[in-house]
Amino acid sequence: MASEMLQPSRLVYGSETFKQQLDTLLAWESVSDANVQQVVTDIVERVRNEGDSALLEFTRKFDHLTATSAEELILNKERLQQALVSLSDEQRNALEIAAARIRSYHEKQLQQDWSFQEEDGTVLGQRFTPLDRVGLYVPGGQAAYPSSVLMNAIPANVAGVQEVVMVVPTPGGELNELVLAAAALAGVERVLTIGGAQAIAALAYGTESVPAVDKIVGPGNIYVATAKRMVFGQVGIDMIAGPSEILVISDGKTDPDWIAMDLFSQAEHDEDAQAILISPDLEFLDQVQESMNRLLPTMERKGIITTSVNDRGALIHVPDMKAGAEVVNRIAPEHLELSVEEPEELLSLIRHAGAIFMGRYTAEALGDYCAGPNHVLPTSGTARFSSPLGVYDFQKKTSLIHFSEAGASKAGQVASVLARGEGLTAHARSAEYRIK
Amino acid sequence: MASEMLQPSRLVYGSETFKQQLDTLLAWESVSDANVQQVVTDIVERVRNEGDSALLEFTRKFDHLTATSAEELILNKERLQQALVSLSDEQRNALEIAAARIRSYHEKQLQQDWSFQEEDGTVLGQRFTPLDRVGLYVPGGQAAYPSSVLMNAIPANVAGVQEVVMVVPTPGGELNELVLAAAALAGVERVLTIGGAQAIAALAYGTESVPAVDKIVGPGNIYVATAKRMVFGQVGIDMIAGPSEILVISDGKTDPDWIAMDLFSQAEHDEDAQAILISPDLEFLDQVQESMNRLLPTMERKGIITTSVNDRGALIHVPDMKAGAEVVNRIAPEHLELSVEEPEELLSLIRHAGAIFMGRYTAEALGDYCAGPNHVLPTSGTARFSSPLGVYDFQKKTSLIHFSEAGASKAGQVASVLARGEGLTAHARSAEYRIK
Repeated sequence: MASEMLQPSRLVYGSETFKQQLDTLLAWESVSDANVQQVVTDIVERVRNEGDSALLEFTRKFDHLTATSAEELILNKERLQQALVSLSDEQRNALEIAAARIRSYHEKQLQQDWSFQEEDGTVLGQRFTPLDRVGLYVPGGQAAYPSSVLMNAIPANVAGVQEVVMVVPTPGGELNELVLAAAALAGVERVLTIGGAQAIAALAYGTESVPAVDKIVGPGNIYVATAKRMVFGQVGIDMIAGPSEILVISDGKTDPDWIAMDLFSQAEHDEDAQAILISPDLEFLDQVQESMNRLLPTMERKGIITTSVNDRGALIHVPDMKAGAEVVNRIAPEHLELSVEEPEELLSLIRHAGAIFMGRYTAEALGDYCAGPNHVLPTSGTARFSSPLGVYDFQKKTSLIHFSEAGASKAGQVASVLARGEGLTAHARSAEYRIK
Repeated sequence: MASEMLQPSRLVYGSETFKQQLDTLLAWESVSDANVQQVVTDIVERVRNEGDSALLEFTRKFDHLTATSAEELILNKERLQQALVSLSDEQRNALEIAAARIRSYHEKQLQQDWSFQEEDGTVLGQRFTPLDRVGLYVPGGQAAYPSSVLMNAIPANVAGVQEVVMVVPTPGGELNELVLAAAALAGVERVLTIGGAQAIAALAYGTESVPAVDKIVGPGNIYVATAKRMVFGQVGIDMIAGPSEILVISDGKTDPDWIAMDLFSQAEHDEDAQAILISPDLEFLDQVQESMNRLLPTMERKGIITTSVNDRGALIHVPDMKAGAEVVNRIAPEHLELSVEEPEELLSLIRHAGAIFMGRYTAEALGDYCAGPNHVLPTSGTARFSSPLGVYDFQKKTSLIHFSEAGASKAGQVASVLARGEGLTAHARSAEYRIK
């Protein structure tokens, strides 16, 4: 059917319209809807003020889950363990290997306290401590991904967070055993079968039965994202993720089918997902487009892929890899595949990307599940200034300052001059008391 | 005058009303005003769409600064250097010592790339790269603090940010030479004499003469803070700071005048600032209150101090240091002084604080200017989940994943099982192509 033909945009580096076409292609702003804002405000305020009773009411209303007490919504560690045991050997084994690889990579991110002593005995340093308690939001239904549970909970666990509380809506009471099994493997303390803005409010402010947390992480729909923005400041939050993206830059010598499938692997996420290929080999771009069209009919999620590729996908022709790298830096992609013979060389030209998949064998999909690094990554060009989720998101820092008597006397003189220059005389006098 | 008597709240740990009194004392929410929101939305949209012409118009309107082109608003490096040379020897010397100490401390925060190789040749790692360009907002008029310029710009400079662009409003054209001198010392590339929401919009989206930046840091009034929240996502931002706070915990053996002045040093910042003292020594609390009242008439900013102490200040009596530490962790203060003989012992009980000032000689004011650690710290209890500004705020991370052929084959089998479990078959097939 002609209507199912894939026609990604074709851009040519250096053409008159290139810059503008690229800007249009990349333009993405999540729309903030006044109605959603109002609905979420009401839910958050009510849960904050009324606690469990409002939480139960909204859970009945939105998830058709009737509980007479919030205790009924708790799944304990035994229930999680039971889910793990119930898996097929193949699934359990895969989940365990993924969890072990993710844990081992993230352990490298643990930050250590440091300090140094100055000649006069003054000691300066920085201390790292875990957050006390973290909330993990897991979407219900179709978008409930066990891999997300591993990627969000394991870094918190490695950081030393004492309690990871997971919430997952179960519309109609349906539980996803893979998600619960992942929670068991990732060290989640307890799971609550609640969701939506009401779950975010309960985690942020606490209710009689939901403990208030210090940070909330994990993906969610527009209601969840809006609620997270709203409670930011009361608790920490991770980033509000945009649609998934993949950018492949290739020398044209990788199997076109491989690249086509790599592009599909992000395009299948949702209709707003973005898959882009850059190559100096024009013929290769045609081959990949041909592969995409040949493979499309075999795809389970062909409707989503078609919309994604035709609305937001692109094949970009560049004169050389240097120009390609320049385009990569302009895009600052979430996922970047360097599908070339010598990826290290190209790597040195790349400044901005969430995760870089090097060489022809490193399919992006490996990073989604079991490579080890986190799959929660900056989207929509935010890799210019932000980073993958990591252990560092669950550790906070405290500056340590311990002046010796001699050190305080010297520093006091400097502080006094500067404080008086700023007109802050109590600052100055507080420092001056310590001058010998 | 009775009206000038300082009467901080008195709380007693363990009393029936203690928890509620403490909650009330600490309650703080910045009010989001619909009018401010609308004004800022209009300014941001106009600067985004119209560029320099809107920027010049708002600068004329709000700062009474008439420029016919944006070029007239640029202060170049020579002008900054000139400000540095114009200072008194005493001021220049103090500023240079502070800058050197801040730089040396922050150099310890530089993060290094790491990677490791697995048996099958697969390499995993993480790379740290500086942000390309950062905007630094400096408030104009009375609140223009050279120390803030050092604290914000030096970490960016140490991180390797290529260009730090500073904006500072100069209502009526008045320049603060200390601020410009600090910019020269801190490695600022250029200064623009613009401010308000229009400056934030120009930095976030760029105009003909203002380059778009990747992150905006620095304090500002409610219009600036609202604009920063609005452009978040387009660029990174630092935290929206609440009023300044100091919490002193003392064994009662420090000179009460010292502690009184330490409390004043934060109370003088603004009327919403919060100064709290905790001690197991009831008599000492009385002595400090007596010192505060005796010293108050000698203070330049006595009006601000009086309002701050009477509205938000407190003296808290605790049975022992363990209970004191528990209260500290509940407060999670921005600045914490451990004014005791053995601060290390007490330190081990503290989980949450932005910066900890250890021992009787370490006045908090030293940390504001020249100790070395950053003075941009989490306020309003956010030290539970966030950290001092640092070099890490100007470096971003990228995950590196390079599978060998053998590694991709093994990992592909795991990814395939998990992807099919999630119903994402393009993910699975992309991984399966690499299975041998």
